[in-house]
Amino acid sequence: MLMRNSGDFAGRWRAVRRSMARQGMESLLVMHLPDVRWLCGFTGSNAALAVTAKKAVLFTDGRYTIQAREETRGARVAIAGKSALRESCSLLAESAAKAWFDPQHTTVADLSLMRSGVDKKRSRGFFVPLEKPLVSALRMVKDAGELTSMTRAAALGCDLFETMLPRIEAGMTEVALAAELEFEARKSGAEGMSFKTIVASGARSALPHGRATQATLPRKGFVTLDFGVILNGYCSDMTRTVHLDGATGEERAAYDAVLEAQETAVSAVRAGVTCGDVDKAARDVLDKAGWGKHFTHSTGHGVGLEIHEQPRVAAGQEAPLEAGMVITIEPGVYLPGKFGIRIEDMVAVTETGGRILTPVTKGWIEL
Amino acid sequence: MLMRNSGDFAGRWRAVRRSMARQGMESLLVMHLPDVRWLCGFTGSNAALAVTAKKAVLFTDGRYTIQAREETRGARVAIAGKSALRESCSLLAESAAKAWFDPQHTTVADLSLMRSGVDKKRSRGFFVPLEKPLVSALRMVKDAGELTSMTRAAALGCDLFETMLPRIEAGMTEVALAAELEFEARKSGAEGMSFKTIVASGARSALPHGRATQATLPRKGFVTLDFGVILNGYCSDMTRTVHLDGATGEERAAYDAVLEAQETAVSAVRAGVTCGDVDKAARDVLDKAGWGKHFTHSTGHGVGLEIHEQPRVAAGQEAPLEAGMVITIEPGVYLPGKFGIRIEDMVAVTETGGRILTPVTKGWIEL
Repeated sequence: MLMRNSGDFAGRWRAVRRSMARQGMESLLVMHLPDVRWLCGFTGSNAALAVTAKKAVLFTDGRYTIQAREETRGARVAIAGKSALRESCSLLAESAAKAWFDPQHTTVADLSLMRSGVDKKRSRGFFVPLEKPLVSALRMVKDAGELTSMTRAAALGCDLFETMLPRIEAGMTEVALAAELEFEARKSGAEGMSFKTIVASGARSALPHGRATQATLPRKGFVTLDFGVILNGYCSDMTRTVHLDGATGEERAAYDAVLEAQETAVSAVRAGVTCGDVDKAARDVLDKAGWGKHFTHSTGHGVGLEIHEQPRVAAGQEAPLEAGMVITIEPGVYLPGKFGIRIEDMVAVTETGGRILTPVTKGWIEL
Repeated sequence: MLMRNSGDFAGRWRAVRRSMARQGMESLLVMHLPDVRWLCGFTGSNAALAVTAKKAVLFTDGRYTIQAREETRGARVAIAGKSALRESCSLLAESAAKAWFDPQHTTVADLSLMRSGVDKKRSRGFFVPLEKPLVSALRMVKDAGELTSMTRAAALGCDLFETMLPRIEAGMTEVALAAELEFEARKSGAEGMSFKTIVASGARSALPHGRATQATLPRKGFVTLDFGVILNGYCSDMTRTVHLDGATGEERAAYDAVLEAQETAVSAVRAGVTCGDVDKAARDVLDKAGWGKHFTHSTGHGVGLEIHEQPRVAAGQEAPLEAGMVITIEPGVYLPGKFGIRIEDMVAVTETGGRILTPVTKGWIEL
């Protein structure tokens, strides 16, 4: 399905060129597909975007001739004969003395191919790895259209949780629960899931990355559901943990602590606050309640066209939140062999606080 | 779910070390996850495998402490404090003068990290890009356990096609058909789909890479279903094209030509025959019948732990087929704006011919 961004492409192009100018970059090669999509709207699977101060050309291949012309904004489309990547570099070499590229999303083999597109005498030192991401960094702050897409994706996630809640019961397999959730997601128009659905029940809830298995939900114990949908290209991400049958005092105490940590961290969200401070807000609550050493991962991450984006909401991260960022807040407590709990919302950062995009109940639920 | 390979790990280790010795490589860094899984059985998402003639150490992180010990065969497990990749390179530098790595699956940023793990005086020239893939090349030939897994995955694909066949009807959306198929796959134990399910109907069937959309199946016309499941880590891949209501003479003629091309190419499969010859077998049939210029892609590809593996079954490919390889044979004909047809089987190569792993009917079906 051709998913069209209706975003502010002109604004994005201006921001990229401003950033290039500020850092003295005369040209830039963009080939990470989410970056390409964000910047020019093209959603195909083969793309290399050659950008200079004045020009931009999207190189792709013959499979995408029609699609590229329909989707691309702010760049001319060129259909490469052999290699889109190589040809984009040849073009850059015609008009620039250096080209910056993203070393996180360029393989060593890609770099060889890139060099082969540039005259040998000039190729030495022509390609410069970016010291820090440029387009991905700009993608952190979402524009109004993106926030609308993400709000819709998050709302669909909430609907799915409410649909599934009455169907969760002891004896069904984790995989069956995941399959039903994903089927409902598809029927509701999701283009796909943002990542492999996590259903972790009983002692398996203590695995933070526990994909759904053939394990059956226990008669008694926690079930953690961590999932997301893709809508108009944008990912949602949320986690809820519910309890089957009666909980022990320890289970309930741990849940209440995680919930308090999560709500406290959400309250800490505001433009200007550092990511480290938001992480600390969650961590302090769990430390004080004695669960700190069982909170074994970071508090959250940015989300958007990719499920994991900048910023990292983790200890010591000095980067300040900015209005328009969308992050997850997802503290958890994991007792290996016993149980685990995680509660996660998507939160849009504003000047005055955080707006929860996943407002479905996160209070104690016993089924 | 922890999926365990029950493969011949000792044999794989021997084959890798034989290949290293033959090419004069004293050490090898393996970090492409399907390669890691194939060689040592570890299925986690963070891994760097340091291999010398005598030793092998799998580096991962604390999330995988238990899983890595349970799964890994033929290598010691080390839990990295910071970077599994960096630490694996430090170890290699202790016992080797050079280390080979796969430039197709190593980013420029990875390579910097790798170099940072090696003493500066020694890091120059320490890392050598493989000229051609080593582990991935060995993975082309499947052992008995792998063939069993792939036969089962392919059989599940066939079952799913038969389940869906009576449910295909005009007016339903492509996405709904894909969603039902995927739901049945999950219920039948598939760990996931090998790729985004393709449902391309009516004029959209002329798009070789047409993901399922909100388009509704037409009253009259072709529907192409191209999908695969993952079972025990191994991918299946198959395509069938059916027709709703009465076909035109042109549609039927094109279908018959594609089927003949597909069956002819399957008949050409045998150890020793080149991939180019198999491609040519399909292409010749379509050329003779006048459809050649509408067959716009290659005939097939290897399949296994990844959906697209070596070898490429394409024009001019000199590589000979070997017994134990599993390839797809999937010629197609595409008339832009009108219709398209593709028929695809998975075929295991034997000394005497090809064994079809997807034996569900591919004759003309009109619904």
